[in-house]
Amino acid sequence: MSSDLAARRTAVLGPNVPTFYETPVHLVKGEGVWVWDSDGRKYLDCYNNVPHVGHCHPHVVTAIATQAAKLNTHTRYLHVGIVEYCERLTAKFQTQLDQVIMVCSGSEANDIALRMAQAVTGKTGIIATDNTYHGNTMAVSHLSSRKPPIGGYASNIRHISAPDTLRPVGGTADGQAVAFAQELQTAIDDLESAGHGFSGFICCPTFANEGLPDLPQDFMKPAEQVVKAAGGVLIVDEVQPGFGRGGETWWGHEWLGISPDVVTLGKPMANGHPVAAVVARAEIMAEFRNAFGYFNTFGGNPVSCAAAAATLDVIEQENLVNHAKNVGSVFLHELHSIDHDSIASRRGRGLFLALELETDGAADEALAAHVVEYARNHGLLMGRTGRNRNILKLRPPMPFSNENVAMACDILQAAFKA
Amino acid sequence: MSSDLAARRTAVLGPNVPTFYETPVHLVKGEGVWVWDSDGRKYLDCYNNVPHVGHCHPHVVTAIATQAAKLNTHTRYLHVGIVEYCERLTAKFQTQLDQVIMVCSGSEANDIALRMAQAVTGKTGIIATDNTYHGNTMAVSHLSSRKPPIGGYASNIRHISAPDTLRPVGGTADGQAVAFAQELQTAIDDLESAGHGFSGFICCPTFANEGLPDLPQDFMKPAEQVVKAAGGVLIVDEVQPGFGRGGETWWGHEWLGISPDVVTLGKPMANGHPVAAVVARAEIMAEFRNAFGYFNTFGGNPVSCAAAAATLDVIEQENLVNHAKNVGSVFLHELHSIDHDSIASRRGRGLFLALELETDGAADEALAAHVVEYARNHGLLMGRTGRNRNILKLRPPMPFSNENVAMACDILQAAFKA
Repeated sequence: MSSDLAARRTAVLGPNVPTFYETPVHLVKGEGVWVWDSDGRKYLDCYNNVPHVGHCHPHVVTAIATQAAKLNTHTRYLHVGIVEYCERLTAKFQTQLDQVIMVCSGSEANDIALRMAQAVTGKTGIIATDNTYHGNTMAVSHLSSRKPPIGGYASNIRHISAPDTLRPVGGTADGQAVAFAQELQTAIDDLESAGHGFSGFICCPTFANEGLPDLPQDFMKPAEQVVKAAGGVLIVDEVQPGFGRGGETWWGHEWLGISPDVVTLGKPMANGHPVAAVVARAEIMAEFRNAFGYFNTFGGNPVSCAAAAATLDVIEQENLVNHAKNVGSVFLHELHSIDHDSIASRRGRGLFLALELETDGAADEALAAHVVEYARNHGLLMGRTGRNRNILKLRPPMPFSNENVAMACDILQAAFKA
Repeated sequence: MSSDLAARRTAVLGPNVPTFYETPVHLVKGEGVWVWDSDGRKYLDCYNNVPHVGHCHPHVVTAIATQAAKLNTHTRYLHVGIVEYCERLTAKFQTQLDQVIMVCSGSEANDIALRMAQAVTGKTGIIATDNTYHGNTMAVSHLSSRKPPIGGYASNIRHISAPDTLRPVGGTADGQAVAFAQELQTAIDDLESAGHGFSGFICCPTFANEGLPDLPQDFMKPAEQVVKAAGGVLIVDEVQPGFGRGGETWWGHEWLGISPDVVTLGKPMANGHPVAAVVARAEIMAEFRNAFGYFNTFGGNPVSCAAAAATLDVIEQENLVNHAKNVGSVFLHELHSIDHDSIASRRGRGLFLALELETDGAADEALAAHVVEYARNHGLLMGRTGRNRNILKLRPPMPFSNENVAMACDILQAAFKA
């Protein structure tokens, strides 16, 4: 039946729409950190960050069902939902980040963020890191070197080397922060001399798609200084690290001690309901709002706001940020007890962890693929990341427990033995 | 309380985020064609097309609540929901339009459609009509002359005159279809000689944002020929006219008897849940999918598909396409009995109707604004459209009844008298 479904899927969705795994998982049910396939088989979910507070969390489901039955309309009418939610959300940020645009996807959020930088600076040059992914709109696809845009890169885009644990920018871990900032300065100079000028720099504060490198807490300070000295807008994409994923702090940039001008949010924001947002300084919001009459039909509708607010409730009520810190540190500790010659690095913070695999000094993509398949076949869902797809990515729903950690590590240990 | 809320809204959303009406409507509840404000006041909704099958339709609400409690995840796992929905959806189209990408907003859908045209032709030139609106991403904002993009228009964009009832392209109603096609040909020639080449033409088949002009059923035939002869992709934006809005046919392009290569869908698709889609010919889908590894985290998730499928159910079960035709023709007939010297045209099909207001041969925006405010103050929600904002727009949820028509026309009649 699943193979029939796969064939029907290809017929109606077209080619090159991959599923995960050699034999795709046909899911029918989710609850907390668990999902079930159509054969009734149960999997521990150590991959999905979108169901942030757990699959089908009843508090979020009830909020969606209740509001959907009451009213769902756009934001050209007054509604208390968007106002209350945005007030709660901005209270989680540094005081200058006090205004919000609600949208439907991280792609829409980043697409706006780029225009905010352009509107406020009057310049067009944008800099991103070199193996990132910030979304799928035409404009945002220019930021990704993993998915080059149709028609090639626009002339106002520059990519700089992302930080790396095993192969640091500039050659040494100690010098990486300064070398990274120097590359940024070089790209700014290049944009200036090409006539585009520098409007902004966008990065994920954990460089998640580039392999979640180990970073000292002051890593971004030199880069931040370079951006601000050049009059550019610092955009931080919190789509992956946001909402406490890393434990300890609500945001990735907060842990780094930097002050972005614009922050984008997405995936985990409403536990899977299509909600995303841009949070910005008031001056920047005003420039954007005056330059472009932005309106998003679905963005900020009462149901989306109810889903997002309920997700915030659960993070707070279940103390999930602190929980991620505690369980994450146990998880990282346990990962250190997994023994295999090809594990070149074990790292991460909170419930976002990585194992980088190398054999004979070269990225071992095949081993990483093998481990992911083995895990899938033994009841554990996980993924891979990094430019060489050789980094195992562990990023479970936030209620992941120490017991779940033990089970995940047992399966991982067995996978490396097999 | 509503004025406090408006102030809090401005503080947290920023400037230039307008609400409708001089005194915004503070909505708290919706049901069918009715909405209620925070003072318990009831309004007949003759504006909102997003709650297509009626505000808070219980079948759609139940589908959302049930699926949200069961599983909500992305499309890298197999799930029957997206496959079954896309099969049902493509069955509503001409046979060659047989593959789908599901996304979260009409903007995302149109952003993809433009890239499909570019991927399949290897060219970049795009043509749109001159007062349209196809969404809010950076790329799509170039199509709108109502909301010019930040940084000005890209050199590969051309705008041609949209058809018009009172001031036809080319000067006469009879010659409008040919004159429109000639403008299109001139724009294609211009893109070719500028070196961009012609990739595609995008239009709303009802030209809804340009005032919903009266069109003969063969209006688009000459333009279609021009696009196909030049090797371009014909993109039809069904975000407003789709899902039977015009009565008689499911799609605006179907009524016009044309064969688009790509169709985009949005607003009404899931009755307010953030769902949109691109439907395309398989060859075009393949070119796009091979040129760009598109993935949308929220697009096509099980809850979105359940919401969209339930909306299809209701359209079919309540026979809403035929209903829109019948009630729409009564509505248009009743509009003809509203008497005022400034009503220069009464037009539309199904449940999408327009009254164009002119005084002394000039667009009367002030009168249109007055009528809309009067209606709001007397329990009827409606809007304005067109390049001069002088066209009253009547576009209610599809279950609008003959009784609702009578009430709406009474209020309109009184508004014109006042």
